Amino acid sequence: MKLIKFQADGRTSTGIVAGSGVVDVGRRAPHLSTIGAMAAAPDEVARLARGASADHALADVTLLAPIEPANRIFCVGVNYKSHAEETGRDVSPRPSVFIRVHESIVPHGMPIIRPKASTRFDFEGELAAVIGRPAHLVSEQDALQYVAGYSCFMDGSIRDYQKFSVTAGKNFDRSGAYGPWIVTADEIPDPTRLTLATRLNGREMQRSGTDLLIYSVPLILSYLSEITTLVPGDVIATGTPAGVGHRRDPQVWMKQGDRIEVDIAGIGILANTVEDEQ
Amino acid sequence: MKLIKFQADGRTSTGIVAGSGVVDVGRRAPHLSTIGAMAAAPDEVARLARGASADHALADVTLLAPIEPANRIFCVGVNYKSHAEETGRDVSPRPSVFIRVHESIVPHGMPIIRPKASTRFDFEGELAAVIGRPAHLVSEQDALQYVAGYSCFMDGSIRDYQKFSVTAGKNFDRSGAYGPWIVTADEIPDPTRLTLATRLNGREMQRSGTDLLIYSVPLILSYLSEITTLVPGDVIATGTPAGVGHRRDPQVWMKQGDRIEVDIAGIGILANTVEDEQ
Repeated sequence: MKLIKFQADGRTSTGIVAGSGVVDVGRRAPHLSTIGAMAAAPDEVARLARGASADHALADVTLLAPIEPANRIFCVGVNYKSHAEETGRDVSPRPSVFIRVHESIVPHGMPIIRPKASTRFDFEGELAAVIGRPAHLVSEQDALQYVAGYSCFMDGSIRDYQKFSVTAGKNFDRSGAYGPWIVTADEIPDPTRLTLATRLNGREMQRSGTDLLIYSVPLILSYLSEITTLVPGDVIATGTPAGVGHRRDPQVWMKQGDRIEVDIAGIGILANTVEDEQ
Repeated sequence: MKLIKFQADGRTSTGIVAGSGVVDVGRRAPHLSTIGAMAAAPDEVARLARGASADHALADVTLLAPIEPANRIFCVGVNYKSHAEETGRDVSPRPSVFIRVHESIVPHGMPIIRPKASTRFDFEGELAAVIGRPAHLVSEQDALQYVAGYSCFMDGSIRDYQKFSVTAGKNFDRSGAYGPWIVTADEIPDPTRLTLATRLNGREMQRSGTDLLIYSVPLILSYLSEITTLVPGDVIATGTPAGVGHRRDPQVWMKQGDRIEVDIAGIGILANTVEDEQ
């Protein structure tokens, strides 16, 4: 299933994508009207949706980022050997983690913003794992049981700020994107068998199998669960492979009018245009 | 004025402290029932409170952290020369920023938690500045106009996780504290003239004038406003002076039954006991 959060007819709701339509889960079952509630109860969502006819055309709804205010966005820094090599960074024995605030992301289809403060606006295509059960002190072995599903993440980065602190470079308003939906874990039994590609204006800039992650999804989830109690709907952006703009020669920066796509086979395409801050 | 968020009689509200009493601002004016709304309208809060008699005894209310779900907690890393020296860190030309999630803090009077994952639980007493007006691309010169007031912050740190990423070490559930209230900026015209002290079980561990900040409150606010639009109620924790536990010989770690206090003259005392995670 593809779990979505959307607006239609002036209402915000949750739903699932069924072909070219949307089954409005939140309207049919108000207790499932958050992404967290759907992520925690995929079987119930599936029963509700079985045989249901679409309430909206997918083309008629506005997708929102599949996250709620109560959720956190944890991101892993250098997590592909290829990207570690291009950045010249050592590989740490534990993942390097930073947080993105909600204001730093937009949903699929909404423009990301190149800020006034910098032109060094770079892309990072990533696989995101979404939590489905409260997870605290979970072992690596058990970790995948706590994953509701997967999505695409564009970890947009302002490189000249990132050099002073990763948090600064990663938290510009509307500089990243998350979505378009969460594909439930039953459709992706092994998150190491996905292929991620990032395209800028149709040109492929990054391509990697997710088997090349230095820290696996189970390892990251287990590690974060030592720190906090992860809750349904929390997002873990797992890091980006080689090919980012600032490590190219010549360097490539995103600018007004560009189109950036993060494409993960079996999940979907997260596509956004770029606009300059007004 | 001292702005608070509190629970009393099973209700959550906002208010101001008046002597040993609390004027219930949120009940008298529902549009002021968030910390952000009070921070944005101190003159209105003052008018409302003038001559009002207390609705509760301060001793009868449970203080909550003076922050709302929509607010962010931005923290500055190495920001006192004395602490930079003890950590051996270079001073960067721009502040180093990280984010704490709400789950990582508790209010004044509620126990902070030493996690199962580590015994290396350290204190950091800090001055916090609270935003009063939306602030984007604000100059250093104008920045103090955007500050609603000041509070105390205990930036509790798990040192063996912090070495892999500052975000990890600073985001353990309920490992820090914020409060007890926000003292409005009219009472603190110059945030560089405060004295901060941190006491562990009554013993003074840190003492510094806030004039020794490497990056001033206006500089930090201006810098963050390049990245995001700060909103009323957002918190900026400004960093800690020398004297933290892991730089002492022998090292000092917080443990079950300890009492940690952050005392800033003119603001108040943020006091919390320490409990082990159950």
